[in-house]
Formats: sequence, C-alpha cells, structure tokens
Amino acid sequence: MNLAARLQRQDGRRYDQIRPVNITRPFLKYADGSVLMEMGDTKVICTASIEEKVPPFLRDKEQGWVTAEYAMLPRATHDRTTREATRGKQGGRTLEIQRLVGRALRAVTDMTQMGSRTIWIDCDVIQADGGTRTASITGAFIALADALMKLKSQNLLKRCPLTDYLAAISVGKVGQQNMVDLCYEEDSLAEVDMNLVMTGNGRLIEIQGTAERAPFDKDDLDEFLQLGSEATQQLVTIQKELIGPLT
Amino acid sequence: MNLAARLQRQDGRRYDQIRPVNITRPFLKYADGSVLMEMGDTKVICTASIEEKVPPFLRDKEQGWVTAEYAMLPRATHDRTTREATRGKQGGRTLEIQRLVGRALRAVTDMTQMGSRTIWIDCDVIQADGGTRTASITGAFIALADALMKLKSQNLLKRCPLTDYLAAISVGKVGQQNMVDLCYEEDSLAEVDMNLVMTGNGRLIEIQGTAERAPFDKDDLDEFLQLGSEATQQLVTIQKELIGPLT
Amino acid sequence: MNLAARLQRQDGRRYDQIRPVNITRPFLKYADGSVLMEMGDTKVICTASIEEKVPPFLRDKEQGWVTAEYAMLPRATHDRTTREATRGKQGGRTLEIQRLVGRALRAVTDMTQMGSRTIWIDCDVIQADGGTRTASITGAFIALADALMKLKSQNLLKRCPLTDYLAAISVGKVGQQNMVDLCYEEDSLAEVDMNLVMTGNGRLIEIQGTAERAPFDKDDLDEFLQLGSEATQQLVTIQKELIGPLT
Amino acid sequence: MNLAARLQRQDGRRYDQIRPVNITRPFLKYADGSVLMEMGDTKVICTASIEEKVPPFLRDKEQGWVTAEYAMLPRATHDRTTREATRGKQGGRTLEIQRLVGRALRAVTDMTQMGSRTIWIDCDVIQADGGTRTASITGAFIALADALMKLKSQNLLKRCPLTDYLAAISVGKVGQQNMVDLCYEEDSLAEVDMNLVMTGNGRLIEIQGTAERAPFDKDDLDEFLQLGSEATQQLVTIQKELIGPLT
Amino acid sequence: MNLAARLQRQDGRRYDQIRPVNITRPFLKYADGSVLMEMGDTKVICTASIEEKVPPFLRDKEQGWVTAEYAMLPRATHDRTTREATRGKQGGRTLEIQRLVGRALRAVTDMTQMGSRTIWIDCDVIQADGGTRTASITGAFIALADALMKLKSQNLLKRCPLTDYLAAISVGKVGQQNMVDLCYEEDSLAEVDMNLVMTGNGRLIEIQGTAERAPFDKDDLDEFLQLGSEATQQLVTIQKELIGPLT
Amino acid sequence: MNLAARLQRQDGRRYDQIRPVNITRPFLKYADGSVLMEMGDTKVICTASIEEKVPPFLRDKEQGWVTAEYAMLPRATHDRTTREATRGKQGGRTLEIQRLVGRALRAVTDMTQMGSRTIWIDCDVIQADGGTRTASITGAFIALADALMKLKSQNLLKRCPLTDYLAAISVGKVGQQNMVDLCYEEDSLAEVDMNLVMTGNGRLIEIQGTAERAPFDKDDLDEFLQLGSEATQQLVTIQKELIGPLT
Repeated sequence: MNLAARLQRQDGRRYDQIRPVNITRPFLKYADGSVLMEMGDTKVICTASIEEKVPPFLRDKEQGWVTAEYAMLPRATHDRTTREATRGKQGGRTLEIQRLVGRALRAVTDMTQMGSRTIWIDCDVIQADGGTRTASITGAFIALADALMKLKSQNLLKRCPLTDYLAAISVGKVGQQNMVDLCYEEDSLAEVDMNLVMTGNGRLIEIQGTAERAPFDKDDLDEFLQLGSEATQQLVTIQKELIGPLT
Repeated sequence: MNLAARLQRQDGRRYDQIRPVNITRPFLKYADGSVLMEMGDTKVICTASIEEKVPPFLRDKEQGWVTAEYAMLPRATHDRTTREATRGKQGGRTLEIQRLVGRALRAVTDMTQMGSRTIWIDCDVIQADGGTRTASITGAFIALADALMKLKSQNLLKRCPLTDYLAAISVGKVGQQNMVDLCYEEDSLAEVDMNLVMTGNGRLIEIQGTAERAPFDKDDLDEFLQLGSEATQQLVTIQKELIGPLT
Repeated sequence: MNLAARLQRQDGRRYDQIRPVNITRPFLKYADGSVLMEMGDTKVICTASIEEKVPPFLRDKEQGWVTAEYAMLPRATHDRTTREATRGKQGGRTLEIQRLVGRALRAVTDMTQMGSRTIWIDCDVIQADGGTRTASITGAFIALADALMKLKSQNLLKRCPLTDYLAAISVGKVGQQNMVDLCYEEDSLAEVDMNLVMTGNGRLIEIQGTAERAPFDKDDLDEFLQLGSEATQQLVTIQKELIGPLT
Repeated sequence: MNLAARLQRQDGRRYDQIRPVNITRPFLKYADGSVLMEMGDTKVICTASIEEKVPPFLRDKEQGWVTAEYAMLPRATHDRTTREATRGKQGGRTLEIQRLVGRALRAVTDMTQMGSRTIWIDCDVIQADGGTRTASITGAFIALADALMKLKSQNLLKRCPLTDYLAAISVGKVGQQNMVDLCYEEDSLAEVDMNLVMTGNGRLIEIQGTAERAPFDKDDLDEFLQLGSEATQQLVTIQKELIGPLT
Repeated sequence: MNLAARLQRQDGRRYDQIRPVNITRPFLKYADGSVLMEMGDTKVICTASIEEKVPPFLRDKEQGWVTAEYAMLPRATHDRTTREATRGKQGGRTLEIQRLVGRALRAVTDMTQMGSRTIWIDCDVIQADGGTRTASITGAFIALADALMKLKSQNLLKRCPLTDYLAAISVGKVGQQNMVDLCYEEDSLAEVDMNLVMTGNGRLIEIQGTAERAPFDKDDLDEFLQLGSEATQQLVTIQKELIGPLT
Repeated sequence: MNLAARLQRQDGRRYDQIRPVNITRPFLKYADGSVLMEMGDTKVICTASIEEKVPPFLRDKEQGWVTAEYAMLPRATHDRTTREATRGKQGGRTLEIQRLVGRALRAVTDMTQMGSRTIWIDCDVIQADGGTRTASITGAFIALADALMKLKSQNLLKRCPLTDYLAAISVGKVGQQNMVDLCYEEDSLAEVDMNLVMTGNGRLIEIQGTAERAPFDKDDLDEFLQLGSEATQQLVTIQKELIGPLT
C-alpha cells in the first residue's frame, strides 16, 4: 500500500495524514484534569472531575468508576443545533457517543486500583469539523490521566490505574478513496465511515464501521485498520510526551 | 481454521454454530408485515407499518424513509427491567439499537423507489437470551420486505426497492474462544463482543466491536469476520426461502 | 330474558357468547408467572415478577403489594400507535387501565399474607381486538396465582394469599342490543360500554360503565350485570381448571 | 327502603342526605363561564373558556369539542400534595378524573351544534373534603352552559347545544351502611366507593364503582342507584333554577 | 413631589394610590396558614404548610427552610393559559417568581430559630390583574407568620423567627407618568416595570426593574423608590393589624 | 465618595475597579458573530446565529426577534454541576438568566428594522468566577452587533438596528464595603448582590438587586448605581473600539 503516493485531499493532506493536533493543558482552572483538544478545526474541551463516591450499582464492590458525558455547543455546527437542555433530553447520537467514550476509557483503566471514587469526564465540543467523538476520546484520556496523577501525587493512589495509552481516529471511504481523519465535508460525502479506538500497544478497543452509501468488504476493512493504526500511534506519541509514563 | 472440530459449548453447540432459527410469518393481523423471530430462546416481534407520509426533513425530496424502534418487555429479561414509558424516556442502549436497525435497513433500500412514504419497523423483544439486536435486524428485514411486497402487489410500487438481503449476527470471544451467536450467559462473560450486519452478497453494512474485558487484535477480527460471514449466509438462505427474489 | 334466541352477531356469536379463550401457560421463561391470554383476536402477554421489597409507603407495615403496568405494542392496533416511551409518558388511557388492573388484583389478595414483597404484573397487548383491559385482568390473575404458588412451593409463604378467583369481561349496547365481550368493531359502534370485574363467587369488584352515545337506564344495567356474571363465571371455570384450588 | 329513618352520620346528616350546596356564579371575571362550586367543605373553581378552533382530529368534521382539565391546589388536602407542574406530569388519578369530566359533559352536548370551536373546562379544587370529581362535574355543567349561552346571546349559536342537565354524586358503603355524598373521612373508610353521573331525566351517563375493601352485590348496586338518583335530581333542580331552560 | 395632585388614572386612582386591599384569613381549613389576598381584581390564595424535615442540602445544619411555589389557574388570565402540569414543566416566568417569593421571605426569617423544619409557601393566582408576584409576597408573609405563630402556640418554637414585616408592590412608568400598583392594562403599556420588596422598617429586600420600552434614569429610580416605599408601608400597616407584633 | 482611596480587595483591586477584560473576536468559525468574553477568570463564549424566520407569535408582524440561551459547562464551577441536558430541564437560575440576556438585548434593538428574522444568542460559560450573567450580556452585545453588521454588509439590512451600546456589571456589598465586579469568592460572601445593565448613554435597562444577608437602603443603592455606571462606561468604551459606530 502506498497511500502516501496518492493524490492530495481538498485541504492538501495525504490520505494517510491526520490534521494538525494542538493540545492546551491544563485549560480550565477548577477541573482535576482539562485539555482543549484541537484536531484541525475540531475543538473539544475535555475535563475530568473526581467525585469521592461510586454509582449505586458499585456500592460495596471495592472499585471505582469512569463515566463520560458529551455535548456540543449549539453553534459548534454549520447551522445552529437546538440545545439538548432546551429540548429536555439528550439525543440518540449524544448518548451513543458518551457511552462510547466512557466504555473506551474504562477499557484501559484498572478500576480496582482507583478507590471508591468516580471520575467524570466531560467532552464539550465548541467547534465541530468532523471527528468529534474520536477527538473527545483522545483528549479525555489525557484529562483522565491528569486527574489520576493528581490523586497519586496526593498519595490517594499508590500507582496510576491506567493500563495503556488510548487514542481514537476516524477512517472512511470517500469517492472510492480510503482515508484517515475525515473533516466534516469529507464525512458528509463518505460511502463508509469508521471509528477506531486503539491502545498504545496497537490493539483494538472499539471498531464501529457503517456503510453510509455502499457496503464494504474485507479489503477495505484491512486498509482502514492500517490507516487507523498508524494515526493512533502518532496520537499516542503525543500523549506520551505530555503525560509521561503511566506509573 | 477448523472451528467445527473445537470442543462444544454449554448448550452443545459448536463454536461456529448458530442457534435454531424459527420464524412465524405473518404473526400479527394488522401490521403490513410481521414476524415472530426466534433464535434459540431469544424472541422478537418485528412489524412493518406503512405510513403515507415522510418526515419533515424529506418533504419535497421525492423519496421515502425507513425508520425503526426497539423495546423490550419488562420481563423479557432475567430480572424485571423498568418500563421505559414509566421512566419517561428511552435509554441509551435502546436508542443505540434502534438507530442501528434503521440504518442497516436503509442501507439495502433504494429509498428513491419507495414513493413518499415511511415504513416504520417495530422490534419488540418478548424474551431476551442474547443477540436481540441482531435477531431484530434479521427479522425486521423480512417484515420490511413483506410490507414492500404488499405495496407492489397493490401496484403502488413498480418493483421492490430492496437492493439485497440483510442479516445480522453476534460474534465474540469467550474464555479465549472465538464463537458465533452468543447466548446471554456467553455474552455476559465475553472478553470481546461484536455485531456484524451483512448483505446477501457477503459485504459489510455494519461492524461494531467492543473490547469488554481485553483489547483484541487483527487475527481475532479476521476470525470474527469469517464466523459472522458464514452465519449471516445461513440466515440469508432462510430469508430467500421465505421471501423469494427481491424483484 | 332469552338472549340466546336473539339473532347472531357479525362473527356468528350469540349476544351472550364470549369469544374463544386460549391460554398458553407458562409463556416466557424468566417470569415468575406468565400467560399468553387470547380472547378471539385479542392477545395479551401477562407476567408476574416477584420483588423482595415493598414501595416506600408500605415500609414497616408488614404487608406486601401488588401493582400492575399495561402497554400495547405500537402495531397491536389497526393503525400504528406512537410508542409511549418515545412520547415520554404514559397516556391517560394506559394509566387508567393499569390502575384498574392493580386495584382489581389487590381486591382478591390478602396482602398481609404475602410477606414484605411486591408482585409486579405486566400486561402487554400484542394484538388488540377489543376487551384488552378485561383480558389483561383475567390473564393477570393466573400469572399472579402462579407467582404466589411458586413462593408457596418454595416455603416462602404458608398459604396462597388469594381470597377468590377474579375475572373480567366487557358488556355493552350496540345497535340497541345488549351483548357481551365486544370485539373492536362492536366496541367502536357501542352506545354503552361497560367493564365488569367479578369474583369467583359472583360478587362485584369493579363496574365501569360509560354512555358513549346515549344515556342508559336501570333495565340495561340489570341486563349488563346478568351477561357479565355468566361470562365471568365461564372464565373462572377455566381459571379453576388451570390453577386448581387457592390454598 | 327507609334510609331517612336510619341513624345519623358523624356530621349529623341522614344517609340519603347531601351536604349543603353553595354555588357562586360568576366567580371570575375573565372566563366565559365560572362558578365556585361548594358541597360542604369541598370547594372547586369551575371555568369554561371558548377557543375558536378544534383539535386536529376534528379538523373539517364540522363539529365542536368539549374538553376538561382537573387539578388540586397543593394544600387543598390534609397534607400538602406535591404540585404536578413541579413533578413534570399529571398523575394517573388526575388524568382519570379529567377524562371522566370531559366525557360526561360531551355526553349531554350536541357537538354538531357548537360550531368549529372548543370549550375548555377547568376544574381546580381549592379545598378537598371528598367528592371532588362529582362536584367538578356538577359545577362544570353550569360553567359550560353559561359559556354556550354567551355564544347564543352573541348570535354565534342558534340554540343551546345541551341535550339535558347533568349532575354527579358519590355513593358508597361505610361500616355496612350505604350512603350518599361521602365526605373525606367517610370516603377513607368506605368498603365500596361509587360515582354516578346522571342526566336531568334520570338516566345514567357514567357509573364507576370500586370494591375498596370487600366485593359488593346486586342489592348494594340497586340501593346505590336509588341514593344517587335522588341526589342528582336535587342538584339538577338547583341547576335549573340557576341556568333556566336549555334552549 | 406632589404625586397626589396629578391627574387620575383610568380606574380613578391617583398615581400614588394602591388598589383596595382585601385579605380573607384564614381562607382554607387544612393549611397551617392561609389567606386570600386581593389587591383590586388580582386575587391570590397564599398558604403555608409545615413539613417536619429540611431539604438534603441543610441536613445536620441545625436550621430550617422556607421555600415557595407559584402558579396561575389557567383562566386567571384574559385568555386561557396552558396548564403547566399539562406542558410537563414550569415556565421561566413561574420559576423566576417563585424563586423571588422564597428569597424574599427567607430574608426576614431567622432560619436558625425555626427548628429542622420547612415551611412550604404556595401562591396560586386565581385572578390576575397585574401585580401577582407582589401580592403573592405580601400575602405569603401573612400565611408564613400564621404558620410560625401556630408552631409557637404549640410550644414548638420559643419565639417567632421573623425579623421584620415584609411587603411588595409594583411601580412603573406608563405614558411618561410614574405610578404605583399597576393593573394589567397599565402594566401592558408600561415603559418601565419595577417590583420592590421592602421591610417594615423601610429598607430594601429586592429591587427588580426592567426597561420594557425605553431606558430610564436615576430620577425615575428615585421616584419609584418613594412611591414603593409609601405603598409598602401601607401594606405593612395592614399586616401589623392582622398579625400583631412579631414576637 | 472616594472609593479609590479605600483599601484593596483580596486580588489587589480597588473597590471601583473591574477585572481585566479580554475579548477574542471572532472566536468560532461557523457563527454569524462570536466572542470569547473574559473578565478575570470568568470566561463565556457568546455566539449569534441568524435564522431567517420569526417565532409564531410574531408571524405577519413585520418585525424580527432577538432571543438568548445560557448554559454552563459542567466543570465551569468549583464542583462539577450536573448537566441540564442530563437532568432533562433547564433550572430556574438558567431560565432567569437567559430571559434577562434576551430582554436586555431587545431593549437596544429596533426589531422593526431587522426584517422577519431571529438572532439567536448563545452564552456558554466555560469558566465561572462570578459575574457570568453580566459578562454574557456585554459579550453577547458584541456578537449580536457582528451578526447585524454581517446582514448589513450583505445588503440585507439598510442600517444597523441597534439603538445604543449595552453593557452590564455586578455590584454588591461585601463586609460592609460596596464594590464593583465581584469575583466568585466575594459574591459568595456578599450581603447585597446587584446586577446593572446600562446603555452607552448611561441610562438603565435593568436593575436587579437582592439582599442576600441584610436589607439595604437608599444610600447603598445610590452608591451601587455610581459604581455600576462607571464600570459599564468602561466596557462600552471597549465595545466602541471593537465594533465602531452603530450605523
């Protein structure tokens, strides 16, 4: 495969090239961990908040919990989206994404090493140019790590309960071309749209692929995996520089 | 791969063997298409209802729409689950599943050939023993086909707008073994849980895989695909016998 | 009164004749009691679920509780009905029916003999051809009895807390004729619509009669009572065969 | 039957005696009809509001509509009841009552003679000492009549669309005694509780009887009807004096 | 300033003249304090209910709480307003008003002297002709005082925890004239609308002024304060006569 | 008055000194106007969105509309606040603030000069250190001006419909000292809390003052007005530099 040799995309990127990554950390003064995660024009505020109790279903289970919520500002999008608080409920897409974020983070957290506490992750998209759920996961991992490190620095944890780094990226097929890290315009034209969540050691945590316009086959899937694997490794490299070792 | 040679599962099945399939059709007298879809002890009532209008976002677009809703009876499960109508909202899992069912069905429907009408799919689980979302998709496809065939028989459609058959199955890794069509007990122990939606010609419509307890790798993924591909082909064979050609 | 001599109804029944009754028991594998209750084309799944606690208002009162919920599948009806979970609340008709079902069952249950536990009754209509609330009560009584017998067989109860059998039927006036067990079409034309809930010994638990199109008088009421009394006795006879003595 | 000879009740009434009736009319300055309906210490504000349109299901049907809503002030009751607007929904009892009130009023209204308009009835209980739903119906009839008479006086209606007077009363069995117009304390002790809605010419519109503590039989029912019939005739006499002929 | 000399208003009042005040006390038999507060045609039922517990945020704080709820009957207004219980939530105006009422009452209550109990204030407007929030505050103060005096008379409180009397009034600018106690018609034409809550000793508890049609300046504000101060003193005089000293 | 001479506050400010103001404009790429408004550590994203229609109550009225929504990110605050979309409704404080923001902006907009369109203002607080509602108003005015100027530059408006600049500030009494622009810690200790909204020419649009711990008098009010007037003039000066003349 020589993706690098293929023609450029509308914003000049190669098919295997992710958008510029910019991470501001810490971003807010009250949170126990906070980043402004930017991938191109997609911007997400990810915060971690420590709560010294666990949900009812974990009472007396001697473990902690990690949970996530996701939202978009009304004008994060091209056209204004009605505020979910005004409508009186979170939509299906929101619930789906925040379930994904929480599940992914829990998959790399040894919750028996957290104490009886909950880490709340909040991912609030302030500008949406495609890939908001994957940017949320990649940024939320950093906020989570910072909150856990804070607990460790306060001697409330012996060691960091994270078992690996965690990053996510979108891949897809647009105009018959498989590519990585789709912006909004590419995403809206995609025949296939896939999100991959992977660990620092290159294994899979989540794969969610949808044929938006045409079914896909095993060859596409293999190529998606390779594109996603390379991209998440780049993101993990950035995470390692920021966070340091998970100990 | 010789899955057939592996040791049997708790209910005596081979790792590549799906549970007995039983389809009662039609099942209810008012619906435009209806089946009772049984895969082992999992039982889902799938109905299709024709409505002679489209949602607001499709007005004047000269196409139709297919949408789905999903629910479980309170005592479909081991312990009684609170009724969503009583809680006042559909939960995240429900919304996620019904979005999946609708998206999958739309992927094999040429909605420009349906007229300005909506087909409502209702999947109501009356007994849940694992794989309710995949049984819903496989059964709902039949109910949808029946509703479309009814429109065709009334000369309201020239031809059936379905572009291919559609079936779904769960695969997963349980106790280090990859297997197909997990029952509830297997599902609750699974390290990896994946749902595959595939067309009659063996291509992918949806892939949703989650590392519940441990990350997985490319070799697992390849094996999941092979298991799922064989299983959905068996389900499609049954669909073909029941529905006949999609013309 | 010689109702039997009157002309037949559209489905060939006499005015004092109930529809064929079919009871499948048990119907679902997880519930503590479950029946599929069929009266003609009206089909209701009735389940009983034991919960080892009581609602807050009974705490420390040394008694149990019986409560009921009711719903219809969206396509149980001629036209699809919007799902209550989607609308975000149960409608007035639903609340009225489930209050009636619970109240009727409690009237024949000595709740001081149940222990501090709740029996949840769920009545889910899968096909609605008139008389769904009365079929729910008649079927729910059997599911309730089965759950209580299960507790007794586990030595969790000394004796069955039921004080009598319980059955319900609709009566009404259609085209100036008083008749029993109205199907949907008769119900939609009725001048008067009445539901009767009676005990095994022929006494009244509930009477709810409504002049839909014209007021009625004492003579009608007397005839309604006689029709209903005979019909509920037939249903009680079936219950006795299925359940046996209430001891 | 010589109920009058029986011993008196706690407030000195005979078993067949209703509480003092006091009707203030008009009671509020903006409504198209309004009364303060008092039966003993039960006090209900009943208003009628004319709206010059009909609900969607009646569009182009050339008829009008009458609908009702019911509520209680939080401290209408012995203990404060949580406000339904705060809880975010109307309870089952409220929905049941307002459905009853609307249905009863429609039963004596020829809605084809109302024009394409809706009369909204609001019954707001400011003090609840038993019989709030029956007081609501009796008072609401007067407010409805006043609103219709107002339309007639404005030449918007040729004649009053009411077909008869309408009044309601509660009856019940308390301590083995059948009696009429139960106050709160009697109601809370009743073995049987029944509400009767009757027309000016003594026919039945609604009968709703519940065995709260013990089943009842045909003899009780006959006595309830006689008690209720006499009481509603007294209320109708008052209505005739206030409203005059329904022409 | 000689406001008294200015021309009269539409209802014959001087610009500094409040409407006739009529207070019926007690008004309802179950509440611990209740008044019907009338200012002209504005009529509000204010009740106080004692609850022997405090909200969660005050647990173990050794103080009590005063909270308020506000509502209008649907036909308190010129046109019928949709019932908030039907809409499923309290509107912004309602929440704003009930927050104001509660806050104002708490400002004159020494909650450390109330014991661990809550006083619930309910203000239900049965007729709205302007100034409903200020009439609610003035009336609610009396109901609150009565409930506290009841506790004192039962020796549950040593002394009345109220620190001062409390009354409220609206002021505004209509047609370039500053005036007090606006009726609905004046309010709907007002350029500036202001509500003042003041203590018995003439100090300010709340000031809420809004430029509805044109900004206002310091001179207006000074005149508003003087008008409001005189009016609230008149209301306090009435309160003193009714309640007596706050000891 | 020589406020400048008084002792400094905890962050070193004088009593009449506002916090550093920082305005990033535009801040988001899709909105029609957007600023990041910072006053000290309080940070609010204010956006304006143009919608080419008006709410139902303005149909055929030949005017436009300006409306506002307000929210806080869950971790904008010291402790995490539950997300309103999760709770299913906006709280009373939120509704009160967004009603204030909308009302204030409409007071300086000639809505008959806007065409039949709505400008939606969204104020989303990402960090809350006191004064979020006043920062929202000051920032929202700039976003609104930018959206209107955009319409004008597209020749969709002949002239800017704004009638004056608009800024807001909090004032209050803390520890017996009157001061301006309270930070969170000062606010939480304040005896009196007041928000002032003023125009560019120094007139009042809104005044909202609350005695949190002790009543206040006319002298306090006069001092609050002077402090607020000076502060809003400083903010208006910044607005003028950014926006230029309102023509």
